[in-house]
Amino acid sequence: MTPTFKITKKDSRSRARAGVISTPHGEIETPIFVPVGTQASVKSLDPRQIHELGAQIILANTYHLHLRPGEDIIKKFGGLAKFMSWNGPTFTDSGGFQVFSLGVGKEGGGVKFLREESKQEPEEAKPRLNKITEEGVTFQSHIDGSKQYLSPETSIEIQEKIGADLIVGFDDLESPKHTYEETKKSLELTERWLLRSKKAHKNKQQLLYGVTHGGIYQDLRVRSAKFNDEHFAAIALGGAHKNKANMHEIVEWTIANISEEKPRHMLGIGEVDDLFELIERGIDTFDCVIPTRIGRTGFFFIAPPLGSIKNRFRTDIDKPQFAKDQKPLDPNCSCYACQNFTRGYIHHLFRCRELLAYNLLSLHNVHFLVNLTKQIRQVILNDKFQNLKKAWLDK
Amino acid sequence: MTPTFKITKKDSRSRARAGVISTPHGEIETPIFVPVGTQASVKSLDPRQIHELGAQIILANTYHLHLRPGEDIIKKFGGLAKFMSWNGPTFTDSGGFQVFSLGVGKEGGGVKFLREESKQEPEEAKPRLNKITEEGVTFQSHIDGSKQYLSPETSIEIQEKIGADLIVGFDDLESPKHTYEETKKSLELTERWLLRSKKAHKNKQQLLYGVTHGGIYQDLRVRSAKFNDEHFAAIALGGAHKNKANMHEIVEWTIANISEEKPRHMLGIGEVDDLFELIERGIDTFDCVIPTRIGRTGFFFIAPPLGSIKNRFRTDIDKPQFAKDQKPLDPNCSCYACQNFTRGYIHHLFRCRELLAYNLLSLHNVHFLVNLTKQIRQVILNDKFQNLKKAWLDK
Repeated sequence: MTPTFKITKKDSRSRARAGVISTPHGEIETPIFVPVGTQASVKSLDPRQIHELGAQIILANTYHLHLRPGEDIIKKFGGLAKFMSWNGPTFTDSGGFQVFSLGVGKEGGGVKFLREESKQEPEEAKPRLNKITEEGVTFQSHIDGSKQYLSPETSIEIQEKIGADLIVGFDDLESPKHTYEETKKSLELTERWLLRSKKAHKNKQQLLYGVTHGGIYQDLRVRSAKFNDEHFAAIALGGAHKNKANMHEIVEWTIANISEEKPRHMLGIGEVDDLFELIERGIDTFDCVIPTRIGRTGFFFIAPPLGSIKNRFRTDIDKPQFAKDQKPLDPNCSCYACQNFTRGYIHHLFRCRELLAYNLLSLHNVHFLVNLTKQIRQVILNDKFQNLKKAWLDK
Repeated sequence: MTPTFKITKKDSRSRARAGVISTPHGEIETPIFVPVGTQASVKSLDPRQIHELGAQIILANTYHLHLRPGEDIIKKFGGLAKFMSWNGPTFTDSGGFQVFSLGVGKEGGGVKFLREESKQEPEEAKPRLNKITEEGVTFQSHIDGSKQYLSPETSIEIQEKIGADLIVGFDDLESPKHTYEETKKSLELTERWLLRSKKAHKNKQQLLYGVTHGGIYQDLRVRSAKFNDEHFAAIALGGAHKNKANMHEIVEWTIANISEEKPRHMLGIGEVDDLFELIERGIDTFDCVIPTRIGRTGFFFIAPPLGSIKNRFRTDIDKPQFAKDQKPLDPNCSCYACQNFTRGYIHHLFRCRELLAYNLLSLHNVHFLVNLTKQIRQVILNDKFQNLKKAWLDK
């Protein structure tokens, strides 16, 4: 079967909608947060935990899996889901972003990336590790420095071997520092690469997402939305933005120009306020490394009234005040970490660098975002989206 | 209730026996391997995994928990088991060994420790961090360098606050490099400290183990066994040995001189052959960091016919041959790791330093030793101990 998308309910006062993506490996009820397992593992979590916390689909990365263990091994093992023992749908990103980020150093300090994944990376200039031509990208492996090559055709071939249910076309990435002309040039290359991706895509068990670009420029964004809508049955939103307000505009420009019945994935975004703001603007799925990444540095998500826009719905288990705290991470949370452990114990584990700390904090954080999107789905079904959004985002 | 020990069945051809230790937190069927949770966490495993793999009791460390988070916090949280959300019996070591190892550097290279815990530690000379007097030991914290003090009275007080079901008297440790006179002097100090430990021990919900010492010297070992048998209802075997053959002798000298009805714990030992050899000589329980420590470095246990004395019943997941291997770690194993994942996937995780690798390898390894001791218990009950021992240890 080719994966399909069906809208179950539309919000009466916004573009928010609840739907279902059906894939050969199972159904995905949207909106939903998609945990990231870059290297075929959602960092520190086992598949049983990921299933129990409510996740419905996992996103892995084509660039990383191509380099290690290689798509042929994953294919031989029965595809990504079977390889990682995940009984459910999977998604792969095209690798365009990772290849792009190998080259971004050349542009020097201050470059901002679109995707959260790299927001915490050092921004100092470093030698450019990629070379982009019309044909594709030559780059050095970040693991062993070996010469590697990705193109629309190889990306799709790799993604077909990896065998995720949802895959993404190969794209060039613009920087928000790029001029209009540079951004336009990059967008046009992306358009040609997306058409080549579409042509290379043979396995109709997999749903191929286009990717929208155009940086911060409205006309380019509109053009990209229309282009993707013309050629693809599912749309991923990518590329650069300046700040949250600009990201909201970009999503609005894009969504207004793609067909309602197509599933829309927001690449690499996943702060609490983003989920509300972008679901409201019509996004169905999100992936982001935030919950596991911040978990490994001691941060955990907290719902209102403890959490708010002001503290970014999070606090730090390393704080001395938590040493004697017998409450769970988030008092109303139903995850395994919150049902079984105190802040005091997790504080102790984190201070001791016990690996269980990273597991429990990551588990709680992924549970938090997945279940927030499930809660949002529920209020869309009940036509109470605005109430929930207000309860979370209004101070 | 005071914990009790009851022998269920004795092997007809050796000192091996099956028994039950009953504690306020549950029963422990012996012989059994006790996973180590030094800092109130069995490294990388969560309590549900530890329960599911078949463990019945966890051993934590007085020295480490005293320094962090401190026994008062653990007491406030309801004691060790509740603090770490472990629904079962717990054990604490006295901290004597850890304090001893802070001073052992003064003796220079080549010092061998009794306990596996430190076998892989660097042996170069380092500044001595402890000072032993009749009263107790002054030492520097390995965490922040702060001045600390442990004595028989403080160790017991700390262990009472930590609240494990089984606790151990405070001891001085000999080195196998010590002369007869030095070893005798250390043993006599241990005897005085054990009497002070016994006197300080008030909470009869906790069973206090004595500790045998005497290094490599038969008469001192016999003396220590008799001393402990006179004063304690449960005996831990500690101190130095030269090699495995010497360890076997030491256990024989000791066991021959302690009452049959008392539970016997072997401190810090846990290789596969050790379990057979020492259960045969009358040991009931074992603790050791081996399964989690080697798991974090990529090693996993394998049963015969793959595993043997020659390969120490283990192999290394990092080997290139495992990259394409679709079998589980150990084909006959029933643990979560073996039921759900291939060697190829775990090899990939380990190469990528994914935290899940350490979890799965540790889980398999702890399951392996716990279930080996359970299997040994079963053959003792069926009077077939020698058959199983031969199947495992004879080439």
